[in-house]
Amino acid sequence: MSKGEDTRGAILRQALDLSSELGLEGLTVGLLAKRVGMSKSGLYAHFGSKEELQCAVLDAAAAHFVDAVVAPALKEPRGLPRVKALFERWVAWGTEGLSGGCPFVAAAVELDDRPGPVRDRLVAHLRDVLGTIARGAQISVEEGHFREDLDVEQFAFGFWGIVLATHHFARLMHDAAAGVKARRGFEELVRGAGARS
Amino acid sequence: MSKGEDTRGAILRQALDLSSELGLEGLTVGLLAKRVGMSKSGLYAHFGSKEELQCAVLDAAAAHFVDAVVAPALKEPRGLPRVKALFERWVAWGTEGLSGGCPFVAAAVELDDRPGPVRDRLVAHLRDVLGTIARGAQISVEEGHFREDLDVEQFAFGFWGIVLATHHFARLMHDAAAGVKARRGFEELVRGAGARS
Repeated sequence: MSKGEDTRGAILRQALDLSSELGLEGLTVGLLAKRVGMSKSGLYAHFGSKEELQCAVLDAAAAHFVDAVVAPALKEPRGLPRVKALFERWVAWGTEGLSGGCPFVAAAVELDDRPGPVRDRLVAHLRDVLGTIARGAQISVEEGHFREDLDVEQFAFGFWGIVLATHHFARLMHDAAAGVKARRGFEELVRGAGARS
Repeated sequence: MSKGEDTRGAILRQALDLSSELGLEGLTVGLLAKRVGMSKSGLYAHFGSKEELQCAVLDAAAAHFVDAVVAPALKEPRGLPRVKALFERWVAWGTEGLSGGCPFVAAAVELDDRPGPVRDRLVAHLRDVLGTIARGAQISVEEGHFREDLDVEQFAFGFWGIVLATHHFARLMHDAAAGVKARRGFEELVRGAGARS
């Protein structure tokens, strides 16, 4: 890794923190420059515009998500064990791992009414993760863990709903049983998909 | 209704619109004064502080929700028909009825990290609606529509997850099948609760 990439990574970690406090729209080059102790023109050398910076933050969050959630889950056996690992790690990531909660949940609400490249980038990342769930469900069908006529897109929708509700119950309602409800919701989902356990 | 209450209602309608564009935190007395063509001091006669204004906006959104969703559903027969009507009207309310989407979903993300009276008010409203779902499920158990050992809190969690996922799929992903997925998710939920239809 070159020194430029190193610096860029360090800046993005600060930017991710800042955007989890202030939202993606609250993340300005000026505020970030102050936080990392650089000049605004120095920062513009790394990110040509505010939108480029916002997209880079979403990419950094996605990379973090892959490292913490997707990659470890892919090391589990194919099928249901992998889907289960994905769920468990996801819930931990969204409710415990990040000071400001899941950056994608926050960005989704912030950007749903704002067409443009940042919104497009967010949607692309969300399509990726929904595709990862659907693919995990499809493999579970192939392995005989889920029933053959399962609609894997519908499964991904249900999975996503449980993740969102868990985020709400844990972070907003401060419900101590959020994790228990999440796991029971997931068990119902996989039972509905034909899993026996 | 006195003239003061009339004016207050008209201001709150504008405030709700404005907060659906800018978020609850973006709603300042100055901006609202400009929108309604009043002086800031005139507005302060109605709302003593920014936080009081924000709480009043949440109350207005909750009253709108009761009128559009809860009250009509309560006119349906007790039990499953009522729970179904609640769901159908809720999905329509969150995805079609409001230009900026559900104000509670937006406020939830905005306020989850901001302790204070506005966050408390939001949590109180959400407890109300979750209680309404759980009570509907309880009556469905009593009417014999749902199984006797149903955990109605868990049912409310699942219901809430479907509502949130629908909001995401419709507003952010622009998924034309969001409504279909919502209804199929709800059918699975009530089937899991023991409903035969």
